[in-house]
Amino acid sequence: MLSNKINLNEKFSKFTKQWSPRVIAEMNDYQFKIAKIKGEFVWHNHKDTDETFIVIEGEMLIKFRDGEVKLCEGEMFVVPRGIDHKPCAKKECKILVVEPRGVINTGDAGGKLTMTEDIWV
Amino acid sequence: MLSNKINLNEKFSKFTKQWSPRVIAEMNDYQFKIAKIKGEFVWHNHKDTDETFIVIEGEMLIKFRDGEVKLCEGEMFVVPRGIDHKPCAKKECKILVVEPRGVINTGDAGGKLTMTEDIWV
Repeated sequence: MLSNKINLNEKFSKFTKQWSPRVIAEMNDYQFKIAKIKGEFVWHNHKDTDETFIVIEGEMLIKFRDGEVKLCEGEMFVVPRGIDHKPCAKKECKILVVEPRGVINTGDAGGKLTMTEDIWV
Repeated sequence: MLSNKINLNEKFSKFTKQWSPRVIAEMNDYQFKIAKIKGEFVWHNHKDTDETFIVIEGEMLIKFRDGEVKLCEGEMFVVPRGIDHKPCAKKECKILVVEPRGVINTGDAGGKLTMTEDIWV
């Protein structure tokens, strides 16, 4: 039991690759993933699920077709299922993402940023 | 879309009652709840679901029948389903809890700390 405590900063220290989410925990059939993001991700949506973003350090922007949301440290946002969104960050931003196991980071958009398998850290 | 951004500190500023979780967001059939805790909660378990604790400010202890886990700011723990646990905090601690909608905070243990309905903040 004692070994399963998760320290976010310690987990972030274990990888540097941006836009490459790492699984840090599972709760039922949901996963907690951390990511370092910088620049612009691809437009995509997840037609079957909501997706939660929590900013741990830095600032991110989530662009929508009809607006955008800026999130600072200690702020979160739940992107509803089926809604096109495009995560962005001017400077590297550290985020925690919560979503069901099996969700593809790029939705159906594909491209080189697509994660084809879970990477735990 | 813009109005749904959630600032954790702003949400924490809206209530003072301890051991009284407030719902701040929903993702599919899961809820994000914040709570201020101090002292000792009741022993309980959730037989049908895991439960995630994330410490936002302060320190908490989760006691188990066979040990305990101390969580500081920026640390999290997923309590597996069916495992007896007893959240505690020497000083007031601010936490974020993630679990399915409808989970009772005291499990089957009952008592005066049992939340009988969702309170949003």
